[in-house]
Amino acid sequence: MKALVVEGPGSISLREVEIPASAGECLIRVTTAGICGTDLQILDGYADFHGVPGHEFVGVVESTPSTSDTAWIGQRVVADINIGCRRCERCAAGVKEHCANRKVVGIRGHDGAFAEYVTVPIENLHAVPDAIDDRTAVFVEPVAAACRILEQLALDDHSRIAVVGDGRLGLLIGQVLRTITPHVVVLGRHPEKLEIARALDLRIGDGKQDVGRFDVVVDATGRPEGIHRALELVRPRGTVVMKSTFHGEATVQSWPIVVNEVTIVGSRCGPFHRAIELLASGVVRTAPLVSAVMTFDQYQMAFEWARRSLKVLFAVQPESV
Amino acid sequence: MKALVVEGPGSISLREVEIPASAGECLIRVTTAGICGTDLQILDGYADFHGVPGHEFVGVVESTPSTSDTAWIGQRVVADINIGCRRCERCAAGVKEHCANRKVVGIRGHDGAFAEYVTVPIENLHAVPDAIDDRTAVFVEPVAAACRILEQLALDDHSRIAVVGDGRLGLLIGQVLRTITPHVVVLGRHPEKLEIARALDLRIGDGKQDVGRFDVVVDATGRPEGIHRALELVRPRGTVVMKSTFHGEATVQSWPIVVNEVTIVGSRCGPFHRAIELLASGVVRTAPLVSAVMTFDQYQMAFEWARRSLKVLFAVQPESV
Repeated sequence: MKALVVEGPGSISLREVEIPASAGECLIRVTTAGICGTDLQILDGYADFHGVPGHEFVGVVESTPSTSDTAWIGQRVVADINIGCRRCERCAAGVKEHCANRKVVGIRGHDGAFAEYVTVPIENLHAVPDAIDDRTAVFVEPVAAACRILEQLALDDHSRIAVVGDGRLGLLIGQVLRTITPHVVVLGRHPEKLEIARALDLRIGDGKQDVGRFDVVVDATGRPEGIHRALELVRPRGTVVMKSTFHGEATVQSWPIVVNEVTIVGSRCGPFHRAIELLASGVVRTAPLVSAVMTFDQYQMAFEWARRSLKVLFAVQPESV
Repeated sequence: MKALVVEGPGSISLREVEIPASAGECLIRVTTAGICGTDLQILDGYADFHGVPGHEFVGVVESTPSTSDTAWIGQRVVADINIGCRRCERCAAGVKEHCANRKVVGIRGHDGAFAEYVTVPIENLHAVPDAIDDRTAVFVEPVAAACRILEQLALDDHSRIAVVGDGRLGLLIGQVLRTITPHVVVLGRHPEKLEIARALDLRIGDGKQDVGRFDVVVDATGRPEGIHRALELVRPRGTVVMKSTFHGEATVQSWPIVVNEVTIVGSRCGPFHRAIELLASGVVRTAPLVSAVMTFDQYQMAFEWARRSLKVLFAVQPESV
């Protein structure tokens, strides 16, 4: 099969490799995959990943490890990307995404979906309803990550929220948080991305007059300076959500965190079922975010374009619906 | 009266100045004052403070602004250091410590207690019970700051807590948290301070084998690297409390905060009534922390010694009990 393979920082190539052995997992024929900020950071050396990247994908189940699971075969699916060791205290508590020995599809110790086939454990599968087409289903994973914020914070319709960052994740987070409160603004500095935010009916914030006024500020910039901006915008005793990972260090003036008693919450993967509901109902829209759909042969252009636009997808194998 | 006056970074001198005009506040004859880490940072330029520093103190009320308040005269008191504008939304909500226009005694826009007299609003006063002598009463403010953590976090007797920093604040926080859970350890690197921690029956942690295991880690180091250490020690989805301010920036690797979904909580001033209870009952002990009691004439040695020991006090005027 065709697969994109990372061999080190900045080194990725398209190769012909064996279809992965299922090894107790389900084999999925990947139809569409999305390029995420984390993938770009993996190319820059983040997490020291080697292998096939890609963790936003939709596909069709080709085979299952046990004959009792054959109902999944032919099912269109997305998949939770965390694979716990199944033996530790955290896995026992159902928190496999914090298992110290976990694998993460396309990010840590497990090949991902920038390939014609990928394997994942059966318990990670989520069926995709017909209301969600393949190009939308690719967004289930990042929308789930946005929904994680709803699990972590007690928000209500009075909450005043700023999302810093007008990238793919920022525009998804803005839409998800707007399901709870109308007082959500997006702050960004890319006119073409803010235009898409407007098309999604998101309010665009004026950062200047809003300093120190937000109950919650989400940093979705993917850049070290994002946390600075978030700390300027949040009110005393407010909350900053750190949503973006990046390779390298951020320099933070820590005294305002103490003096203003700010809470900072790291936020990662979230509930797939809630993301599927929001996408199926159309409350969260993703079509305007898709800036290009390319093939693996165009991977260099795809990654380059992903750095400068919202969401680039790979059309991997023929779509099933 | 005698007062220590800060004129700029590193510039402090003992001077003869006017007794402050009460200006609607109570005049307090200061008997004992403590040197806090924040005072040392003010000397280094933190908060760009000019005037009389000092915010840990005990004294006797000499005069009150209104004849209806004369019951306070002669009362031994400590005082909350935040003075709100009384006009804004936050003051109306009773959160004067986050009033944007607040003054803070000895820290921001209001002279402090490294002087024979200090003024504070009557609503900031707390009577000191006889069970607490002057040298203990000076610790009400920092113990209150430690008690703030109890207001911010939901702790119980299963909570596993590390306090990073064996300084004055660390040893107070360790004692306060131990009133909730037996699983509190202090981590430090100063043998002479850890000896005092042991004398206070605090458990001394072995940082190496405890990495990633604590539910809560309190950074009380007062140094930029404290937050790094705290982030190593805390478990996934655990909480780091930032308790110490310092002048300058900290460099933080932000991806572990996101990947491990750590919560960071800035924590400042706390409830005086709870601190007074803990000190009056003897549950929190402070006598072993006092490394020297000096006079204003010895101020240079006092600040120098305060940088290298636990708590240096100024004996200002004769004690009343």
